[in-house]
Amino acid sequence: MKCSVILCPAHLDELYFTGKTIIVIDVLRASNTIINALKNGAKEIVPVASVEFAVKVSGGMFGGQTLIGGERNTKKIDGFALGNSPLEYTEEVVSGKSIVFYTTNGSKAVAKAKFSENLFICSFSNISAVAKHIVNLNTDFEILCAGRNNSFSIEDSVCAGRLVSIIQTLSKNIELSDSSKACLALNKSFGKSILAMLKGSEHGKLLIENGFEEDLKFCSETDSIKVIPYFKENVIKLPR
Amino acid sequence: MKCSVILCPAHLDELYFTGKTIIVIDVLRASNTIINALKNGAKEIVPVASVEFAVKVSGGMFGGQTLIGGERNTKKIDGFALGNSPLEYTEEVVSGKSIVFYTTNGSKAVAKAKFSENLFICSFSNISAVAKHIVNLNTDFEILCAGRNNSFSIEDSVCAGRLVSIIQTLSKNIELSDSSKACLALNKSFGKSILAMLKGSEHGKLLIENGFEEDLKFCSETDSIKVIPYFKENVIKLPR
Repeated sequence: MKCSVILCPAHLDELYFTGKTIIVIDVLRASNTIINALKNGAKEIVPVASVEFAVKVSGGMFGGQTLIGGERNTKKIDGFALGNSPLEYTEEVVSGKSIVFYTTNGSKAVAKAKFSENLFICSFSNISAVAKHIVNLNTDFEILCAGRNNSFSIEDSVCAGRLVSIIQTLSKNIELSDSSKACLALNKSFGKSILAMLKGSEHGKLLIENGFEEDLKFCSETDSIKVIPYFKENVIKLPR
Repeated sequence: MKCSVILCPAHLDELYFTGKTIIVIDVLRASNTIINALKNGAKEIVPVASVEFAVKVSGGMFGGQTLIGGERNTKKIDGFALGNSPLEYTEEVVSGKSIVFYTTNGSKAVAKAKFSENLFICSFSNISAVAKHIVNLNTDFEILCAGRNNSFSIEDSVCAGRLVSIIQTLSKNIELSDSSKACLALNKSFGKSILAMLKGSEHGKLLIENGFEEDLKFCSETDSIKVIPYFKENVIKLPR
């Protein structure tokens, strides 16, 4: 299995992903919001790459069963039912619902990678489950860090390194790119306390400033949820 | 002094660099070729972002005093006088000459950052000299890793981390971004033997395959040259 990490998605176009196995990581917070919403019974997440498209798509969907969620500059968008805090996506709110989802980095990364053969959503909360699944697939894979505004983010890179390190303990058959080796080193340097790493990160500091400190705690928990969201035919679901 | 590292330049446009202090790093090999050519008496380097532009620019320059150099896929381009091996740029060949220079990553990164207020070229060979100069300037700066094909490269990131670490020993007045902290960690993990790191890198392996192993040795030497090439009015020169 060849393994590579895409540290910034900006330079890649949609066709790059055709036929590949891709794991999207957006630790703060889209990955965790998607994971928690599906764990809490949301029917599906429809990731979109623009606010305009979110409004358009949701307009055509079945009344009452659709919510729009997401953020711009960490905050809920006017007219949206939900923001991008995983804690908002409780069973009471999301059970049985389709959620049209726009975020600055994560939903865009998923939408960009839509031509992938396999496309999974990962964060610390489901990392061992995803690792096992990749080892079972036994195929080359690339980890797509959503990053921040098309640029590097430490939390996604550390999570990518952690995923590679777990896969390494499960399979000896893994060939590492420069970027995978770098992320392994970053996990070693910064992965001792995920919560401390998140609190010290640029994105983490911004979230704390904007009142989302509880989200950091939620996003730091490891192997707490264990579901594996996958993307197929324009929606993110759990396997039946 | 705020310090940030741009790990992949793809998502930035030329205007991003306006008024900034930028240090371009392309360890394999453009930084070293530029540094060695200027140390060996080249009058100036004219970095260009396309082969076509290299041919156009050199056509209008003073006959006999201009050479075209650079590479595509690590190899010298048909019709060019020189490739991108720093070892080719000897005093006999380059002294007094203007060199129009095209490479896949490095010359493009310099051309992209042309609106910077200050723009320097760095590699391991002149790293302490550049660090001292930045500390003397006492200004915010960004390190632009040329990378590989708009993507991450381990050698440029480790060199960026080494530069930040030397600057930290010279000045306590430095504020680190996520990317700077990550590069510091990468320098710690991979910087013990620069030559081993280069030989293990994707780009290094490709250069060895193509017969350029000697270049890796040259590019691994630290503080061996000590000049500080800077870009101004479309050319790279040494300060008088």
